[in-house]
Amino acid sequence: MSERKLAIVALSGGMDSCVTAAIAKEEYDLAFLHINYGQRTENRELQAFHEIVDYFDVEKRTIIDFTHFKKIGGSSLTDQNIEVSKADLNNINVPSSYVPFRNANILSVCGSLAEVIGASAIFIGAVHEDSSGYPDCRPDFFKAFERVLNLGTKPETKIEIITPIIQLSKEEIIKKGVELSAPLHLTWSCYKSEDKACGVCDSCALRLRGFQKAGIEDPIEYENKPVYD
Amino acid sequence: MSERKLAIVALSGGMDSCVTAAIAKEEYDLAFLHINYGQRTENRELQAFHEIVDYFDVEKRTIIDFTHFKKIGGSSLTDQNIEVSKADLNNINVPSSYVPFRNANILSVCGSLAEVIGASAIFIGAVHEDSSGYPDCRPDFFKAFERVLNLGTKPETKIEIITPIIQLSKEEIIKKGVELSAPLHLTWSCYKSEDKACGVCDSCALRLRGFQKAGIEDPIEYENKPVYD
Repeated sequence: MSERKLAIVALSGGMDSCVTAAIAKEEYDLAFLHINYGQRTENRELQAFHEIVDYFDVEKRTIIDFTHFKKIGGSSLTDQNIEVSKADLNNINVPSSYVPFRNANILSVCGSLAEVIGASAIFIGAVHEDSSGYPDCRPDFFKAFERVLNLGTKPETKIEIITPIIQLSKEEIIKKGVELSAPLHLTWSCYKSEDKACGVCDSCALRLRGFQKAGIEDPIEYENKPVYD
Repeated sequence: MSERKLAIVALSGGMDSCVTAAIAKEEYDLAFLHINYGQRTENRELQAFHEIVDYFDVEKRTIIDFTHFKKIGGSSLTDQNIEVSKADLNNINVPSSYVPFRNANILSVCGSLAEVIGASAIFIGAVHEDSSGYPDCRPDFFKAFERVLNLGTKPETKIEIITPIIQLSKEEIIKKGVELSAPLHLTWSCYKSEDKACGVCDSCALRLRGFQKAGIEDPIEYENKPVYD
């Protein structure tokens, strides 16, 4: 029997959650949870999820269907009528890809699962810079949610929310991932395409700029590979 | 166009949420949200939901599928292998019907919908007494969640969480319902049966005792109608 504590890692299939998993693995046994919230590129993300979990050689994987986000709408990620905006890395507004209050929904279901399987931590790869205005990526939000989690579960349940890369830049996340041998080649970030990454959506732009700043070649294929600065 | 503000009411089909809706209606235009979390009596609850919403003559109704709670398990309400315990109204432990961290999941999806449709309040019929030990029914929990809601949504989004019956006893809720002409005859509370209420599960016991204390006849049919004190 393992003496290590158990943690749930919310794993989208993207680079941030993959590096988060590599960090969590240093101290915890892992259980992976993936959310299908009806985003355009879900099939590709789910493939990335399974490949990453296989890479980490973990049995416990839970896939949760949040396709009601399609019903709720309000985001270009889940509503085909709202266009995925091209990246504007200097935009200070909340971008069209913001899925309303998504992280609270993810943390809630992670909290339910954590209480049932006895996990003592939830790792989530939120990044404050990456949020490019997502309000549910702020450190204060996670801190407040951890309070909710401990108030709203059984008295004996104690769960930490750990956001190990929240203060890192994409460049630092990539370097950390390489250092920990995180399988970045298996990750998927593009919001728009499922075969080759588009290279121009918010998510691709942040990723590519990160690799360029780190001076490391991004191991995945792109349709377009603009230089960002 | 209505000048009234819009509120989401989380409506299970039970008595508490029905009375909560009647209270909300005094000040707000309503949108109803129902969660199917894979509980045993969902069909009957969904029927009650539609009948109550029709009674209030409201168009906006959203049904959200949370059947992943079945996958997560850990509750007699969603796991057929855990027995629904007979009521023990003096039990001080968390009962087997507790669905881990359920209210956080409900509030999260209400928060997402509220942000998209521009609702300024979420009404939820949580009752502290009724909780019979449910940790996610405490006033502190809701207060903490309201903070999460306002930290985790767009800067211009301001949403209140309103729990108008949280401090009421079942007896008071029933009297309030009768006073506001809430359609108690359309509600469903039983955790166990779908044709006639069992009369002996936690939820039936709390309901029946409430009616008995209020000196009002419960308008729904029961298999057994014990006297509780």
